[in-house]
Amino acid sequence: MTINQNFNNLQKSYLFANIGKKVCEYSAANPGADIIRLGIGDVTRPLPPAAVAAMHKAVDEMANAETFVGYPTDYGLHFLEDAIAADYARFGVSLELDEIFISDGAKCDTGNIGDIFGVDNIVAVCDPIYPVYVDTNIMAGRRMISLPCTAESDFAPALPSEHADMIYLCSPNNPTGTAMNKVQLQAWVDWANEHGSVLLFDGAYEAFITEDLPRSIYEIPGAKTCAIEFRSFSKTAGFTGVRAAYTIIPKDLKIGNSSVNALWNRRQATKFNGVSYITQRGAEATLTDEGRAQVNETIAYYLNNAKVIREGLQAVGFQVWGGVNSPYIWFQAKDGLGSWELFDLLLNEVQVVGTPGSGFGQAGEGYFRLTGFGTAEKTHEAVARIQKRFGG
Amino acid sequence: MTINQNFNNLQKSYLFANIGKKVCEYSAANPGADIIRLGIGDVTRPLPPAAVAAMHKAVDEMANAETFVGYPTDYGLHFLEDAIAADYARFGVSLELDEIFISDGAKCDTGNIGDIFGVDNIVAVCDPIYPVYVDTNIMAGRRMISLPCTAESDFAPALPSEHADMIYLCSPNNPTGTAMNKVQLQAWVDWANEHGSVLLFDGAYEAFITEDLPRSIYEIPGAKTCAIEFRSFSKTAGFTGVRAAYTIIPKDLKIGNSSVNALWNRRQATKFNGVSYITQRGAEATLTDEGRAQVNETIAYYLNNAKVIREGLQAVGFQVWGGVNSPYIWFQAKDGLGSWELFDLLLNEVQVVGTPGSGFGQAGEGYFRLTGFGTAEKTHEAVARIQKRFGG
Repeated sequence: MTINQNFNNLQKSYLFANIGKKVCEYSAANPGADIIRLGIGDVTRPLPPAAVAAMHKAVDEMANAETFVGYPTDYGLHFLEDAIAADYARFGVSLELDEIFISDGAKCDTGNIGDIFGVDNIVAVCDPIYPVYVDTNIMAGRRMISLPCTAESDFAPALPSEHADMIYLCSPNNPTGTAMNKVQLQAWVDWANEHGSVLLFDGAYEAFITEDLPRSIYEIPGAKTCAIEFRSFSKTAGFTGVRAAYTIIPKDLKIGNSSVNALWNRRQATKFNGVSYITQRGAEATLTDEGRAQVNETIAYYLNNAKVIREGLQAVGFQVWGGVNSPYIWFQAKDGLGSWELFDLLLNEVQVVGTPGSGFGQAGEGYFRLTGFGTAEKTHEAVARIQKRFGG
Repeated sequence: MTINQNFNNLQKSYLFANIGKKVCEYSAANPGADIIRLGIGDVTRPLPPAAVAAMHKAVDEMANAETFVGYPTDYGLHFLEDAIAADYARFGVSLELDEIFISDGAKCDTGNIGDIFGVDNIVAVCDPIYPVYVDTNIMAGRRMISLPCTAESDFAPALPSEHADMIYLCSPNNPTGTAMNKVQLQAWVDWANEHGSVLLFDGAYEAFITEDLPRSIYEIPGAKTCAIEFRSFSKTAGFTGVRAAYTIIPKDLKIGNSSVNALWNRRQATKFNGVSYITQRGAEATLTDEGRAQVNETIAYYLNNAKVIREGLQAVGFQVWGGVNSPYIWFQAKDGLGSWELFDLLLNEVQVVGTPGSGFGQAGEGYFRLTGFGTAEKTHEAVARIQKRFGG
């Protein structure tokens, strides 16, 4: 009996678990400390009232034999796929219902998608990047190449100089908060089509786009033959605690004669049993006019926090990216501090928890991520504390 | 770019998808037909009132910033693990909270568990068996051996005659409805410990046990060093549509120096983001005294259906297994009919949908599964139709 030896190649523990441990230890040693958490990308605003009403209604349906719903996948209910297809249509993207796969999280999907691809594929990931892309491919034993993203190019990845089969792109980006424009995305789509590669496009932060930028990879001509898109209700509608996401796999996406859509359908039918009916009804409600207006209010709230952080850091001389089309603010540490040094300093001296840039890859060393997902009050307080410590 | 070539070794489509398609086609051709579905193992009774109340309360908590819950995994909330540990304690099994992993489905867990084990392991599965064990290991490219289960031994698997590393056991069994006793389970635990193998024990139907049989593999001395146990709220509490399950991995379970618990923890932290807070509160409520009484009522309802089917089939001369400690009734076709032939006959002549035994493996050919998960009315009606067709 053997374990999957690839696990031995992983870093000891997951980034956010590490942070949690450090914060826990600090809390225990300083019971009175007023810690402000702007580290993990979790939301804090309550669910949109439209979703709350829809979920109460769905709970009541589950309480009655006439309206009870069992395995979500077996009911032929496509109300959420319908709502998602209509959402895409607003941006001129036309999808068939069976190109949309509802799931319980974009993290799960970006992690599990590797199940359908050969372990001999070469994976390209940006650096810095969301650790899940890296860790899940280490687990699978794939060779990885890194696409360094630097301050000079506003952290947009350059096209690979060597062959890559699977390329993870995240825009608006986690952790840098920057978003790719039409020209940049077109270059990636063209490159992928030319090389027979697949783009794994993580659009979990699409709702935060405020500038004139593509909201879906499928707005780019040619994307349907090379790209999978991951979306989530987590950051958009505050669903981190209720779990709903979706993955788009166009039927035009083929590897040789194999339909990637059919492979994923088989994988999900075998290893997944669908998303809570109650959650799905809540998600559907966030895509109605009423729900959308409520979601926009919440997004505006987080974006305002991001602006407060962005401008507050700039005012005391930090170089800052993101926070305009993203809830994330990415900034460079001063005085040559390393990412974890700045983490410790902020935790110990001003009781603000952020995320060390080096946790997202080597190229993130010396950088730091804060999020706009806190409350307005705590965000102002955190910025005031940082300004007091670093201002001059 | 390559696909996972192992997918080419899978049967074309998932068993239940096949059945769904056949039923769909029949319905379309016979719009007025009153089809009774006793095929797929989905439940039909509404959720226990205790769960409904708890879920309404949880939805309200999500509507308020003060009580809002984000990523379930990051909140340090262990109410459901606490309730599960207390449930195990009733049977003399002591578990630490971090030996309990909450998930959204036993299907997901029994499928994904392979991620942490080497692809060079040899997998033993009973035949007939739940197809997920087989398909997920074909996807991973593992060599499989079959443990034939025959009518002569009441479908209990015999110990392997060759080496096996990972052994899937399901008791009470899906599809045969039979359950293993203490002596049988002890033999498996001893064998696994002796051979350094891991038992993957699927206890999803534990709540249906009515006789004096072990309810958990951990009631068997030695199990904590060789067994992983999968449990679900789906069949117990009617949660197929709300999604909650759990997997137990004792810390004493090691492969070489590797803790299997730590491996799974790393896998889940990387590829999973927890179960809906609302669902978890509902699940917790089913483990209170009030919830448990309500669940027991529902289980009794399904077991009575099972009894009706069991006795109804026996009355017209079928040889029948299961239906006593299980919602499943497994019976042998008459007149030398094959499983799919009986499926077509029942669909076309009496409009009853069951599951062909051959869909669970070669050894299931000539057998058929029905479930007690229908309504009492429909179950009586289905049995009456079958008796009319086969009775003499």
